[in-house]
Amino acid sequence: MPKPSNREQLLNQGLRLVHERGFNASSVRDIVEAAGAPQGSFTNHFGSKEAFGLELIERYHDMTSAAVAATLRNDGLPPLARLRAWMTNQLHYLRLHDMRRGCLYGNMAAEMSEHGGPIRARIVEIFAENRASVKYCLDAALAAGELEASAPSAELAAFIVSSLQGAILIAKAQRDPAPVQRFMKLLFSSVLHAPETKPAARTKPLKRG
Amino acid sequence: MPKPSNREQLLNQGLRLVHERGFNASSVRDIVEAAGAPQGSFTNHFGSKEAFGLELIERYHDMTSAAVAATLRNDGLPPLARLRAWMTNQLHYLRLHDMRRGCLYGNMAAEMSEHGGPIRARIVEIFAENRASVKYCLDAALAAGELEASAPSAELAAFIVSSLQGAILIAKAQRDPAPVQRFMKLLFSSVLHAPETKPAARTKPLKRG
Repeated sequence: MPKPSNREQLLNQGLRLVHERGFNASSVRDIVEAAGAPQGSFTNHFGSKEAFGLELIERYHDMTSAAVAATLRNDGLPPLARLRAWMTNQLHYLRLHDMRRGCLYGNMAAEMSEHGGPIRARIVEIFAENRASVKYCLDAALAAGELEASAPSAELAAFIVSSLQGAILIAKAQRDPAPVQRFMKLLFSSVLHAPETKPAARTKPLKRG
Repeated sequence: MPKPSNREQLLNQGLRLVHERGFNASSVRDIVEAAGAPQGSFTNHFGSKEAFGLELIERYHDMTSAAVAATLRNDGLPPLARLRAWMTNQLHYLRLHDMRRGCLYGNMAAEMSEHGGPIRARIVEIFAENRASVKYCLDAALAAGELEASAPSAELAAFIVSSLQGAILIAKAQRDPAPVQRFMKLLFSSVLHAPETKPAARTKPLKRG
């Protein structure tokens, strides 16, 4: 197998570092060192740290889009099972890294305050894309009779995307999957009124409101 | 009025900078310059950036605790009105800064990944404290008959605290209060089943599930 190019190594190691430590805490020097790339290669390949950050987001987006296609937008599966699988996949990925990393989009959104125009704009676009995919899945659930409309599906989708971000953020702070698990449980039982298919997994069944 | 001490100025300007830009993006040099303090005063007063970060959190905590005491734990007001006031206060504060700042706890939790042991631990404690205060308020709502138990109040409180963090994070990314407003609307209508007291504020009433 050919050795990965410097560009490839900078992106691979950069994504790992930025996801672990944050964008502002990962210096260009750290990234170049982790990649074992020559000094100067960073600027040659990317021009600026912001342009590099945007490429990292696209690389991460390739993964999250594939997960969305396999779950939320996968018409071959029952809709609410797709929604659950989308979240379970994310939880699985978070657990691979002991819950330390959180969601790259959420982390970068928290970091991009006064600055970060193009990065922040891209993250806002991706959140909107996720909301549209969750809405697509909820609309399928409504059409399939799996769900009764308690609120417009666009509102519900936005609520799900933002609440999941919060649960992932607290899970990252605590290094504990419980906030995400708790969010899923409450979402399906008290908001969507679609209790889990495996009630044995719960110690105490939730009552429906 | 006496001129604020260097220590006080470092904390005031440091809190503003860190809240605006993030902890990692605010260098000691930036903070010292913003405070108009002499070089060396930072180390004299705080020893390390981490110790300074912990002091900033306590300063922010003084404000958020006062807001909790006036709302969630204020037994003189009806319980669900207290919950709503707690969130409305936060939204008001976020709007003062054009939604740019977000929640200091959430921002720092997102930034503290591999590192940040004591800061992360303190934020985890404060999230737990907020969950306990929301639970206190929900228990009062249950006792007052304002709320029917759809899930254990501790679970519901954790869900509220984490979902609100997510809504604030997306609101910060979008520079738009809508995610927080939408969360509040869905929380009260579809989770707590306590519709707003001013239905005229809605264009389309939400149906109860």
